[in-house]
Amino acid sequence: MTPDWIAVDWGTSQVRAWAMHGDTPLAVARSDAGMGTLSPGDFEAALLTLVQDWLPDSPIAVVICGMAGARQGWQEAPYASVPCAPDAGGCVRPQVHDPRLDVRILAGLKQDRPADVMRGEETQIAGVLAQDPRFDGVLCLPGTHTKWVQVSAGEVVSFRTSMTGEIFALLANQSVLRHGLSDGWDDAAFADAVAEAMARPEALAVRLFGLRAEGLLHGLSGPTARARLSGLLIGAELAALRPYWLGQRVAIIGDAPLCDTYAAALTAQGLAPQMIDASKATLSGLTAAHAKT
Amino acid sequence: MTPDWIAVDWGTSQVRAWAMHGDTPLAVARSDAGMGTLSPGDFEAALLTLVQDWLPDSPIAVVICGMAGARQGWQEAPYASVPCAPDAGGCVRPQVHDPRLDVRILAGLKQDRPADVMRGEETQIAGVLAQDPRFDGVLCLPGTHTKWVQVSAGEVVSFRTSMTGEIFALLANQSVLRHGLSDGWDDAAFADAVAEAMARPEALAVRLFGLRAEGLLHGLSGPTARARLSGLLIGAELAALRPYWLGQRVAIIGDAPLCDTYAAALTAQGLAPQMIDASKATLSGLTAAHAKT
Repeated sequence: MTPDWIAVDWGTSQVRAWAMHGDTPLAVARSDAGMGTLSPGDFEAALLTLVQDWLPDSPIAVVICGMAGARQGWQEAPYASVPCAPDAGGCVRPQVHDPRLDVRILAGLKQDRPADVMRGEETQIAGVLAQDPRFDGVLCLPGTHTKWVQVSAGEVVSFRTSMTGEIFALLANQSVLRHGLSDGWDDAAFADAVAEAMARPEALAVRLFGLRAEGLLHGLSGPTARARLSGLLIGAELAALRPYWLGQRVAIIGDAPLCDTYAAALTAQGLAPQMIDASKATLSGLTAAHAKT
Repeated sequence: MTPDWIAVDWGTSQVRAWAMHGDTPLAVARSDAGMGTLSPGDFEAALLTLVQDWLPDSPIAVVICGMAGARQGWQEAPYASVPCAPDAGGCVRPQVHDPRLDVRILAGLKQDRPADVMRGEETQIAGVLAQDPRFDGVLCLPGTHTKWVQVSAGEVVSFRTSMTGEIFALLANQSVLRHGLSDGWDDAAFADAVAEAMARPEALAVRLFGLRAEGLLHGLSGPTARARLSGLLIGAELAALRPYWLGQRVAIIGDAPLCDTYAAALTAQGLAPQMIDASKATLSGLTAAHAKT
Protein backbone atom coordinates (compact mmCIF):
# COMPACT_ATOMS: atom_id res chain seq x y z
CA MET A 1 0.00 0.00 0.00
CA THR A 2 1.16 3.55 -0.66
CA PRO A 3 0.30 6.41 1.73
CA ASP A 4 -2.58 8.64 0.68
CA TRP A 5 -2.05 11.21 3.44
CA ILE A 6 0.35 12.01 6.26
CA ALA A 7 -0.53 12.58 9.95
CA VAL A 8 1.73 14.71 12.16
CA ASP A 9 1.74 15.42 15.90
CA TRP A 10 4.09 18.39 16.33
CA GLY A 11 4.94 18.96 19.99
CA THR A 12 7.21 21.46 21.71
CA SER A 13 10.13 19.06 22.03
CA GLN A 14 9.32 16.24 19.58
CA VAL A 15 7.53 15.57 16.32
CA ARG A 16 5.98 12.31 15.10
CA ALA A 17 4.66 11.57 11.61
CA TRP A 18 2.71 8.63 10.26
CA ALA A 19 2.34 7.53 6.65
CA MET A 20 -1.39 6.81 6.43
CA HIS A 21 -3.64 4.81 4.12
CA GLY A 22 -7.18 5.76 5.13
CA ASP A 23 -7.23 5.12 8.85
CA THR A 24 -4.31 2.67 8.77
CA PRO A 25 -0.80 3.79 9.71
CA LEU A 26 1.77 2.25 7.34
CA ALA A 27 4.92 3.70 8.90
CA VAL A 28 5.96 6.09 11.65
CA ALA A 29 8.89 8.52 11.90
CA ARG A 30 9.94 10.77 14.76
CA SER A 31 12.58 13.37 15.54
CA ASP A 32 13.57 15.96 18.12
CA ALA A 33 12.72 18.84 15.76
CA GLY A 34 10.05 20.08 18.16
CA MET A 35 8.46 23.52 17.81
CA GLY A 36 10.76 24.85 20.54
CA THR A 37 13.83 24.17 18.42
CA LEU A 38 12.58 25.74 15.17
CA SER A 39 11.99 29.16 13.64
CA PRO A 40 8.94 29.57 11.38
CA GLY A 41 11.11 29.21 8.26
CA ASP A 42 12.51 25.88 9.45
CA PHE A 43 9.33 23.84 9.63
CA GLU A 44 9.01 22.84 5.97
CA ALA A 45 12.58 21.52 5.86
CA ALA A 46 12.08 19.67 9.15
CA LEU A 47 8.89 18.10 7.79
CA LEU A 48 10.60 17.07 4.53
CA THR A 49 13.45 15.44 6.46
CA LEU A 50 10.92 13.38 8.37
CA VAL A 51 8.55 12.30 5.55
CA GLN A 52 10.65 12.44 2.36
CA ASP A 53 10.53 8.67 1.80
CA TRP A 54 6.75 8.73 1.73
CA LEU A 55 6.16 11.55 -0.77
CA PRO A 56 4.40 10.75 -4.07
CA ASP A 57 4.79 12.97 -7.14
CA SER A 58 1.40 14.58 -6.75
CA PRO A 59 0.43 16.71 -3.73
CA ILE A 60 -0.33 14.76 -0.55
CA ALA A 61 -2.34 16.06 2.40
CA VAL A 62 -0.31 16.57 5.58
CA VAL A 63 -2.57 17.09 8.63
CA ILE A 64 -0.74 18.51 11.65
CA CYS A 65 -1.90 19.01 15.23
CA GLY A 66 -0.05 20.58 18.15
CA MET A 67 2.44 23.36 18.65
CA ALA A 68 3.19 23.92 14.95
CA GLY A 69 0.12 26.16 15.20
CA ALA A 70 1.40 28.20 18.15
CA ARG A 71 2.35 31.87 17.89
CA GLN A 72 6.04 30.80 17.94
CA GLY A 73 5.32 27.90 15.55
CA TRP A 74 5.05 27.44 11.78
CA GLN A 75 1.95 29.57 11.34
CA GLU A 76 -0.46 30.61 14.05
CA ALA A 77 -3.71 28.65 13.90
CA PRO A 78 -6.79 30.10 15.62
CA TYR A 79 -8.36 28.88 18.83
CA ALA A 80 -12.04 27.91 18.79
CA SER A 81 -13.92 29.06 21.91
CA VAL A 82 -15.43 26.45 24.20
CA PRO A 83 -18.10 25.27 24.54
CA CYS A 84 -17.68 23.80 21.06
CA ALA A 85 -16.77 20.59 19.26
CA PRO A 86 -13.06 19.84 19.66
CA ASP A 87 -12.46 20.30 15.92
CA ALA A 88 -14.57 23.46 15.60
CA GLY A 89 -11.58 25.68 14.80
CA GLY A 90 -10.79 24.20 11.41
CA CYS A 91 -7.24 24.65 10.13
CA VAL A 92 -4.76 27.03 8.49
CA ARG A 93 -2.71 26.25 5.38
CA PRO A 94 0.82 27.61 5.56
CA GLN A 95 2.53 28.45 2.26
CA VAL A 96 5.04 25.80 1.23
CA HIS A 97 7.75 25.68 -1.43
CA ASP A 98 7.62 21.97 -2.22
CA PRO A 99 4.66 21.31 -4.58
CA ARG A 100 4.25 17.78 -3.20
CA LEU A 101 3.06 19.12 0.21
CA ASP A 102 -0.51 20.19 0.99
CA VAL A 103 -0.20 21.19 4.65
CA ARG A 104 -3.03 21.86 7.12
CA ILE A 105 -2.38 22.88 10.74
CA LEU A 106 -5.34 22.24 13.03
CA ALA A 107 -6.72 24.93 15.34
CA GLY A 108 -6.62 24.75 19.14
CA LEU A 109 -9.21 25.54 21.78
CA LYS A 110 -9.50 28.47 24.16
CA GLN A 111 -11.60 29.27 27.19
CA ASP A 112 -12.31 32.89 28.02
CA ARG A 113 -12.88 32.68 31.80
CA PRO A 114 -10.94 31.22 33.51
CA ALA A 115 -8.46 31.88 30.71
CA ASP A 116 -7.02 28.67 29.28
CA VAL A 117 -5.70 27.30 25.99
CA MET A 118 -4.80 23.97 24.40
CA ARG A 119 -3.07 22.87 21.20
CA GLY A 120 -2.89 19.21 20.27
CA GLU A 121 -5.07 17.81 23.02
CA GLU A 122 -8.21 18.93 21.12
CA THR A 123 -7.26 16.43 18.41
CA GLN A 124 -6.95 13.61 20.96
CA ILE A 125 -10.36 14.58 22.31
CA ALA A 126 -11.77 14.52 18.78
CA GLY A 127 -10.23 11.07 18.44
CA VAL A 128 -11.97 9.82 21.56
CA LEU A 129 -15.28 11.19 20.26
CA ALA A 130 -14.68 9.61 16.86
CA GLN A 131 -14.41 6.23 18.60
CA ASP A 132 -17.18 6.89 21.15
CA PRO A 133 -19.45 9.74 20.00
CA ARG A 134 -21.54 9.49 23.16
CA PHE A 135 -18.65 9.91 25.59
CA ASP A 136 -19.89 12.01 28.50
CA GLY A 137 -17.49 12.73 31.31
CA VAL A 138 -14.03 14.09 31.98
CA LEU A 139 -10.85 13.45 30.03
CA CYS A 140 -7.56 13.79 31.88
CA LEU A 141 -4.51 14.21 29.61
CA PRO A 142 -1.37 14.03 31.78
CA GLY A 143 1.80 15.65 30.50
CA THR A 144 4.06 18.64 30.89
CA HIS A 145 0.84 20.63 31.11
CA THR A 146 -1.90 18.28 32.23
CA LYS A 147 -5.34 19.06 30.80
CA TRP A 148 -8.66 18.26 32.49
CA VAL A 149 -11.52 18.44 30.02
CA GLN A 150 -15.26 18.22 30.58
CA VAL A 151 -16.92 16.63 27.53
CA SER A 152 -20.66 16.38 26.93
CA ALA A 153 -22.92 16.01 23.87
CA GLY A 154 -19.92 15.94 21.52
CA GLU A 155 -18.53 19.23 22.83
CA VAL A 156 -15.77 20.42 25.11
CA VAL A 157 -17.72 22.21 27.83
CA SER A 158 -14.78 23.53 29.87
CA PHE A 159 -11.16 22.70 30.63
CA ARG A 160 -8.26 23.58 32.93
CA THR A 161 -4.51 23.20 32.68
CA SER A 162 -2.16 22.29 35.50
CA MET A 163 1.62 22.75 35.13
CA THR A 164 2.28 19.76 37.39
CA GLY A 165 4.56 17.94 34.95
CA GLU A 166 6.72 20.97 34.21
CA ILE A 167 6.97 21.90 37.90
CA PHE A 168 7.93 18.31 38.79
CA ALA A 169 10.71 18.34 36.19
CA LEU A 170 12.05 21.73 37.34
CA LEU A 171 12.03 20.76 41.02
CA ALA A 172 13.42 17.26 40.45
CA ASN A 173 16.20 18.28 38.09
CA GLN A 174 17.13 21.87 38.92
CA SER A 175 16.09 22.80 42.47
CA VAL A 176 17.85 21.98 45.75
CA LEU A 177 15.61 18.88 45.90
CA ARG A 178 17.66 17.26 43.11
CA HIS A 179 20.32 16.35 45.70
CA GLY A 180 17.89 14.01 47.45
CA LEU A 181 16.03 12.44 44.50
CA SER A 182 17.00 9.45 42.40
CA ASP A 183 15.41 7.11 39.89
CA GLY A 184 13.04 4.52 41.22
CA TRP A 185 9.61 4.69 42.80
CA ASP A 186 7.73 3.97 46.02
CA ASP A 187 4.00 3.28 45.60
CA ALA A 188 3.16 3.67 49.30
CA ALA A 189 5.04 6.99 49.59
CA PHE A 190 3.23 8.27 46.50
CA ALA A 191 -0.17 7.32 47.88
CA ASP A 192 0.59 8.87 51.28
CA ALA A 193 1.79 12.10 49.69
CA VAL A 194 -1.33 12.37 47.50
CA ALA A 195 -3.51 11.91 50.58
CA GLU A 196 -1.50 14.46 52.60
CA ALA A 197 -1.63 17.04 49.84
CA MET A 198 -5.37 16.58 49.35
CA ALA A 199 -6.06 16.82 53.07
CA ARG A 200 -4.10 20.08 53.47
CA PRO A 201 -3.36 21.44 50.00
CA GLU A 202 -2.50 24.86 51.43
CA ALA A 203 0.61 23.35 53.08
CA LEU A 204 2.32 22.50 49.78
CA ALA A 205 4.78 25.41 50.06
CA VAL A 206 6.37 24.02 53.23
CA ARG A 207 6.11 20.32 52.41
CA LEU A 208 8.48 20.58 49.44
CA PHE A 209 11.56 21.65 51.41
CA GLY A 210 10.62 18.96 53.91
CA LEU A 211 11.75 16.40 51.29
CA ARG A 212 15.24 17.88 51.43
CA ALA A 213 15.30 18.07 55.23
CA GLU A 214 13.96 14.49 55.59
CA GLY A 215 16.84 13.36 53.39
CA LEU A 216 19.45 15.22 55.44
CA LEU A 217 18.08 14.33 58.88
CA HIS A 218 16.24 11.06 58.53
CA GLY A 219 17.77 9.35 55.50
CA LEU A 220 14.75 9.63 53.18
CA SER A 221 15.75 7.55 50.13
CA GLY A 222 16.00 8.96 46.62
CA PRO A 223 13.19 6.88 45.08
CA THR A 224 10.88 7.59 48.03
CA ALA A 225 11.61 11.31 47.83
CA ARG A 226 10.86 11.23 44.10
CA ALA A 227 7.54 9.43 44.60
CA ARG A 228 6.63 11.81 47.45
CA LEU A 229 7.37 14.86 45.29
CA SER A 230 5.15 13.46 42.53
CA GLY A 231 2.42 12.64 45.04
CA LEU A 232 2.48 16.09 46.66
CA LEU A 233 2.14 17.80 43.28
CA ILE A 234 -0.53 15.47 41.88
CA GLY A 235 -2.41 15.65 45.20
CA ALA A 236 -2.36 19.44 44.99
CA GLU A 237 -3.61 19.21 41.41
CA LEU A 238 -6.50 16.92 42.40
CA ALA A 239 -7.39 19.30 45.23
CA ALA A 240 -7.47 22.21 42.78
CA LEU A 241 -9.54 20.31 40.24
CA ARG A 242 -12.03 18.49 42.47
CA PRO A 243 -15.07 19.53 40.35
CA TYR A 244 -13.41 17.85 37.37
CA TRP A 245 -13.33 14.37 38.89
CA LEU A 246 -15.54 14.14 41.99
CA GLY A 247 -18.48 11.96 41.00
CA GLN A 248 -17.44 12.05 37.35
CA ARG A 249 -16.69 9.40 34.76
CA VAL A 250 -12.97 9.96 34.10
CA ALA A 251 -10.84 8.62 31.24
CA ILE A 252 -7.07 9.15 31.19
CA ILE A 253 -5.39 9.66 27.82
CA GLY A 254 -1.65 9.14 27.76
CA ASP A 255 1.26 6.78 28.22
CA ALA A 256 2.73 4.82 31.12
CA PRO A 257 4.26 5.47 33.59
CA LEU A 258 2.85 8.99 34.05
CA CYS A 259 -0.74 7.94 33.42
CA ASP A 260 -0.40 5.10 35.89
CA THR A 261 0.41 7.61 38.65
CA TYR A 262 -2.71 9.62 37.84
CA ALA A 263 -4.73 6.40 37.71
CA ALA A 264 -3.38 5.35 41.12
CA ALA A 265 -4.21 8.74 42.62
CA LEU A 266 -7.76 8.71 41.22
CA THR A 267 -8.33 5.07 42.17
CA ALA A 268 -7.46 5.99 45.76
CA GLN A 269 -10.31 8.52 45.57
CA GLY A 270 -12.74 5.76 44.67
CA LEU A 271 -12.75 6.27 40.91
CA ALA A 272 -12.22 3.60 38.25
CA PRO A 273 -10.61 5.62 35.47
CA GLN A 274 -10.69 4.27 31.92
CA MET A 275 -7.28 4.24 30.18
CA ILE A 276 -7.02 5.42 26.57
CA ASP A 277 -3.84 5.06 24.51
CA ALA A 278 -2.50 8.49 23.54
CA SER A 279 -1.16 7.59 20.10
CA LYS A 280 -4.40 5.88 19.12
CA ALA A 281 -6.41 8.92 20.21
CA THR A 282 -4.11 11.28 18.28
CA LEU A 283 -4.27 9.19 15.10
CA SER A 284 -8.01 8.79 15.39
CA GLY A 285 -8.40 12.56 15.75
CA LEU A 286 -6.07 13.35 12.84
CA THR A 287 -7.89 10.77 10.68
CA ALA A 288 -11.24 12.40 11.48
CA ALA A 289 -9.78 15.82 10.64
CA HIS A 290 -8.38 14.51 7.35
CA ALA A 291 -11.77 13.12 6.39
CA LYS A 292 -13.32 16.56 6.94
CA THR A 293 -10.77 18.76 5.20
CA MET B 1 42.90 50.58 62.60
CA THR B 2 43.98 47.08 61.66
CA PRO B 3 41.55 44.18 61.60
CA ASP B 4 41.60 41.88 64.62
CA TRP B 5 39.25 39.27 63.14
CA ILE B 6 37.42 38.49 59.90
CA ALA B 7 33.69 37.85 59.47
CA VAL B 8 32.43 35.74 56.56
CA ASP B 9 28.93 34.96 55.25
CA TRP B 10 29.39 32.03 52.82
CA GLY B 11 26.28 31.41 50.78
CA THR B 12 25.49 28.96 48.01
CA SER B 13 26.13 31.43 45.19
CA GLN B 14 28.08 34.26 46.84
CA VAL B 15 30.52 34.95 49.65
CA ARG B 16 31.05 38.18 51.59
CA ALA B 17 33.85 38.96 54.03
CA TRP B 18 34.39 41.87 56.39
CA ALA B 19 37.64 43.01 57.99
CA MET B 20 36.54 43.63 61.59
CA HIS B 21 37.89 45.63 64.51
CA GLY B 22 35.78 44.55 67.48
CA ASP B 23 32.23 45.14 66.28
CA THR B 24 33.24 47.66 63.62
CA PRO B 25 33.59 46.64 59.96
CA LEU B 26 36.63 48.27 58.37
CA ALA B 27 36.29 46.87 54.86
CA VAL B 28 34.13 44.46 52.88
CA ALA B 29 34.94 42.11 50.02
CA ARG B 30 32.68 39.84 48.03
CA SER B 31 32.92 37.29 45.23
CA ASP B 32 30.90 34.69 43.36
CA ALA B 33 32.91 31.83 44.92
CA GLY B 34 29.77 30.46 46.59
CA MET B 35 29.62 26.99 48.12
CA GLY B 36 27.89 25.68 45.02
CA THR B 37 30.93 26.48 42.86
CA LEU B 38 33.59 24.93 45.13
CA SER B 39 34.92 21.52 46.13
CA PRO B 40 36.01 21.09 49.77
CA GLY B 41 39.66 21.54 48.78
CA ASP B 42 38.94 24.89 47.12
CA PHE B 43 37.63 26.85 50.11
CA GLU B 44 40.93 27.91 51.67
CA ALA B 45 42.22 29.34 48.38
CA ALA B 46 38.90 31.10 47.76
CA LEU B 47 39.06 32.61 51.25
CA LEU B 48 42.67 33.75 50.77
CA THR B 49 41.80 35.41 47.47
CA LEU B 50 39.09 37.36 49.23
CA VAL B 51 40.90 38.45 52.44
CA GLN B 52 44.64 38.43 51.56
CA ASP B 53 45.02 42.19 51.92
CA TRP B 54 43.79 42.05 55.50
CA LEU B 55 46.00 39.25 56.86
CA PRO B 56 48.48 40.06 59.62
CA ASP B 57 51.57 37.90 60.29
CA SER B 58 50.07 36.19 63.33
CA PRO B 59 46.97 33.97 63.15
CA ILE B 60 43.67 35.85 62.81
CA ALA B 61 40.26 34.45 63.67
CA VAL B 62 37.95 33.92 60.67
CA VAL B 63 34.35 33.30 61.74
CA ILE B 64 32.17 31.87 58.97
CA CYS B 65 28.43 31.29 58.82
CA GLY B 66 26.36 29.70 56.07
CA MET B 67 26.80 26.98 53.50
CA ALA B 68 30.54 26.50 54.04
CA GLY B 69 29.32 24.18 56.82
CA ALA B 70 27.04 22.12 54.57
CA ARG B 71 27.68 18.49 53.68
CA GLN B 72 28.87 19.63 50.23
CA GLY B 73 30.81 22.57 51.78
CA TRP B 74 34.25 23.10 53.31
CA GLN B 75 33.66 20.89 56.35
CA GLU B 76 30.30 19.73 57.66
CA ALA B 77 29.30 21.61 60.80
CA PRO B 78 26.68 20.05 63.08
CA TYR B 79 23.09 21.17 63.48
CA ALA B 80 21.85 22.05 66.96
CA SER B 81 18.31 20.78 67.64
CA VAL B 82 15.57 23.29 68.34
CA PRO B 83 14.32 24.40 70.75
CA CYS B 84 17.69 25.96 71.58
CA ALA B 85 19.60 29.23 71.38
CA PRO B 86 20.47 30.07 67.77
CA ASP B 87 24.21 29.72 68.50
CA ALA B 88 23.89 26.50 70.51
CA GLY B 89 25.70 24.37 67.94
CA GLY B 90 29.13 25.94 68.39
CA CYS B 91 31.54 25.58 65.49
CA VAL B 92 33.98 23.31 63.65
CA ARG B 93 37.58 24.19 62.82
CA PRO B 94 38.66 22.94 59.41
CA GLN B 95 42.35 22.20 58.93
CA VAL B 96 44.11 24.92 56.96
CA HIS B 97 47.52 25.16 55.32
CA ASP B 98 48.13 28.89 55.78
CA PRO B 99 49.29 29.52 59.39
CA ARG B 100 47.78 33.01 59.36
CA LEU B 101 44.21 31.57 59.30
CA ASP B 102 42.28 30.39 62.37
CA VAL B 103 38.99 29.34 60.79
CA ARG B 104 35.73 28.53 62.60
CA ILE B 105 32.58 27.48 60.73
CA LEU B 106 29.39 28.01 62.74
CA ALA B 107 26.83 25.23 63.19
CA GLY B 108 23.30 25.34 61.80
CA LEU B 109 19.94 24.43 63.33
CA LYS B 110 17.70 21.44 62.74
CA GLN B 111 14.15 20.52 63.65
CA ASP B 112 13.20 16.88 63.98
CA ARG B 113 9.45 17.01 63.24
CA PRO B 114 8.48 18.47 60.87
CA ALA B 115 11.98 17.93 59.47
CA ASP B 116 13.72 21.20 58.66
CA VAL B 117 17.22 22.67 58.56
CA MET B 118 18.94 26.06 58.32
CA ARG B 119 22.50 27.26 57.81
CA GLY B 120 23.36 30.95 58.02
CA GLU B 121 19.99 32.25 59.16
CA GLU B 122 20.71 31.09 62.74
CA THR B 123 23.52 33.66 62.81
CA GLN B 124 21.17 36.44 61.70
CA ILE B 125 18.75 35.37 64.43
CA ALA B 126 21.60 35.44 66.97
CA GLY B 127 22.38 38.94 65.69
CA VAL B 128 18.80 40.08 66.28
CA LEU B 129 18.92 38.65 69.81
CA ALA B 130 22.29 40.31 70.44
CA GLN B 131 20.64 43.66 69.66
CA ASP B 132 17.34 42.89 71.38
CA PRO B 133 17.72 39.99 73.86
CA ARG B 134 14.01 40.12 74.74
CA PHE B 135 12.74 39.72 71.20
CA ASP B 136 9.64 37.52 71.34
CA GLY B 137 7.84 36.81 68.10
CA VAL B 138 8.42 35.55 64.59
CA LEU B 139 11.30 36.31 62.28
CA CYS B 140 10.69 36.01 58.53
CA LEU B 141 13.87 35.73 56.45
CA PRO B 142 12.90 35.95 52.75
CA GLY B 143 15.23 34.44 50.19
CA THR B 144 15.70 31.49 47.87
CA HIS B 145 14.44 29.42 50.78
CA THR B 146 12.41 31.68 53.03
CA LYS B 147 12.60 30.82 56.74
CA TRP B 148 9.86 31.52 59.29
CA VAL B 149 11.22 31.31 62.82
CA GLN B 150 9.41 31.41 66.15
CA VAL B 151 11.68 33.01 68.78
CA SER B 152 10.97 33.19 72.50
CA ALA B 153 13.08 33.55 75.66
CA GLY B 154 16.30 33.74 73.67
CA GLU B 155 15.63 30.46 71.84
CA VAL B 156 14.46 29.32 68.45
CA VAL B 157 11.29 27.40 69.33
CA SER B 158 10.39 26.12 65.83
CA PHE B 159 10.89 27.03 62.20
CA ARG B 160 9.73 26.21 58.67
CA THR B 161 11.23 26.68 55.23
CA SER B 162 9.35 27.60 52.07
CA MET B 163 10.99 27.24 48.65
CA THR B 164 9.02 30.21 47.30
CA GLY B 165 12.06 32.13 46.03
CA GLU B 166 13.55 29.17 44.21
CA ILE B 167 10.19 28.18 42.69
CA PHE B 168 9.59 31.77 41.55
CA ALA B 169 12.98 31.85 39.83
CA LEU B 170 12.44 28.48 38.11
CA LEU B 171 8.95 29.39 36.90
CA ALA B 172 9.88 32.93 35.84
CA ASN B 173 13.09 32.02 34.02
CA GLN B 174 12.69 28.45 32.79
CA SER B 175 9.04 27.43 32.54
CA VAL B 176 6.54 28.25 29.79
CA LEU B 177 5.55 31.27 31.89
CA ARG B 178 8.82 33.00 30.94
CA HIS B 179 7.27 33.93 27.56
CA GLY B 180 4.74 36.17 29.31
CA LEU B 181 6.83 37.73 32.09
CA SER B 182 9.06 40.79 31.96
CA ASP B 183 10.81 43.15 34.36
CA GLY B 184 8.68 45.64 36.20
CA TRP B 185 6.03 45.37 38.84
CA ASP B 186 2.35 45.97 39.53
CA ASP B 187 1.46 46.58 43.19
CA ALA B 188 -2.26 46.08 42.72
CA ALA B 189 -1.83 42.82 40.79
CA PHE B 190 0.50 41.54 43.51
CA ALA B 191 -2.00 42.37 46.26
CA ASP B 192 -4.89 40.79 44.35
CA ALA B 193 -2.90 37.62 43.71
CA VAL B 194 -1.90 37.31 47.39
CA ALA B 195 -5.55 37.65 48.39
CA GLU B 196 -6.69 35.11 45.77
CA ALA B 197 -4.08 32.58 46.79
CA MET B 198 -4.92 32.96 50.47
CA ALA B 199 -8.63 32.64 49.85
CA ARG B 200 -8.27 29.42 47.80
CA PRO B 201 -4.71 28.14 48.28
CA GLU B 202 -5.67 24.74 46.91
CA ALA B 203 -6.18 26.28 43.46
CA LEU B 204 -2.52 27.24 42.98
CA ALA B 205 -1.89 24.39 40.53
CA VAL B 206 -4.34 25.76 37.98
CA ARG B 207 -3.76 29.48 38.59
CA LEU B 208 -0.15 29.33 37.36
CA PHE B 209 -0.93 28.30 33.77
CA GLY B 210 -3.67 30.94 33.86
CA LEU B 211 -0.90 33.56 33.73
CA ARG B 212 0.19 32.18 30.36
CA ALA B 213 -3.35 31.91 29.04
CA GLU B 214 -4.22 35.44 30.24
CA GLY B 215 -1.22 36.69 28.29
CA LEU B 216 -2.20 34.88 25.10
CA LEU B 217 -5.92 35.64 25.23
CA HIS B 218 -6.32 38.89 27.15
CA GLY B 219 -2.98 40.68 26.77
CA LEU B 220 -1.83 40.37 30.40
CA SER B 221 1.32 42.52 30.53
CA GLY B 222 4.74 41.17 31.47
CA PRO B 223 5.18 43.23 34.66
CA THR B 224 1.64 42.39 35.82
CA ALA B 225 2.18 38.69 35.14
CA ARG B 226 5.43 38.83 37.11
CA ALA B 227 3.77 40.53 40.09
CA ARG B 228 0.86 38.06 39.93
CA LEU B 229 3.22 35.08 39.92
CA SER B 230 5.01 36.47 42.97
CA GLY B 231 1.70 37.17 44.70
CA LEU B 232 0.29 33.70 44.01
CA LEU B 233 3.39 32.04 45.46
CA ILE B 234 3.73 34.33 48.50
CA GLY B 235 -0.01 34.05 49.14
CA ALA B 236 0.30 30.25 49.09
CA GLU B 237 3.22 30.52 51.49
CA LEU B 238 1.25 32.72 53.89
CA ALA B 239 -1.66 30.26 53.73
CA ALA B 240 0.69 27.39 54.59
CA LEU B 241 2.32 29.28 57.45
CA ARG B 242 -0.66 31.00 59.06
CA PRO B 243 0.32 29.93 62.62
CA TYR B 244 3.65 31.71 62.10
CA TRP B 245 2.16 35.14 61.57
CA LEU B 246 -1.51 35.27 62.59
CA GLY B 247 -1.65 37.38 65.74
CA GLN B 248 2.15 37.39 66.02
CA ARG B 249 4.78 40.10 66.23
CA VAL B 250 6.66 39.65 62.95
CA ALA B 251 10.03 41.10 61.95
CA ILE B 252 11.39 40.68 58.41
CA ILE B 253 15.14 40.28 57.98
CA GLY B 254 16.46 40.90 54.49
CA ASP B 255 16.93 43.33 51.64
CA ALA B 256 14.68 45.27 49.30
CA PRO B 257 12.89 44.61 47.00
CA LEU B 258 12.07 41.05 48.12
CA CYS B 259 11.42 42.02 51.73
CA ASP B 260 9.13 44.81 50.62
CA THR B 261 6.89 42.28 48.87
CA TYR B 262 6.63 40.20 52.04
CA ALA B 263 5.98 43.37 54.05
CA ALA B 264 3.22 44.38 51.62
CA ALA B 265 1.61 40.94 51.84
CA LEU B 266 1.71 40.92 55.65
CA THR B 267 0.52 44.51 55.94
CA ALA B 268 -2.52 43.56 53.87
CA GLN B 269 -3.25 40.95 56.57
CA GLY B 270 -3.31 43.68 59.20
CA LEU B 271 0.24 43.24 60.50
CA ALA B 272 2.87 45.96 60.94
CA PRO B 273 6.07 44.04 60.34
CA GLN B 274 9.34 45.44 61.66
CA MET B 275 12.13 45.60 59.05
CA ILE B 276 15.66 44.49 60.00
CA ASP B 277 18.66 45.00 57.73
CA ALA B 278 20.12 41.62 56.74
CA SER B 279 23.79 42.63 56.66
CA LYS B 280 23.56 44.26 60.09
CA ALA B 281 21.94 41.15 61.54
CA THR B 282 24.58 38.90 60.00
CA LEU B 283 27.48 41.05 61.26
CA SER B 284 25.93 41.33 64.69
CA GLY B 285 25.56 37.54 64.88
CA LEU B 286 29.08 36.88 63.65
CA THR B 287 30.44 39.44 66.16
CA ALA B 288 28.59 37.70 69.00
CA ALA B 289 29.96 34.34 67.83
CA HIS B 290 33.49 35.74 67.66
CA ALA B 291 33.20 37.06 71.20
CA LYS B 292 32.25 33.57 72.41
CA THR B 293 34.82 31.46 70.54
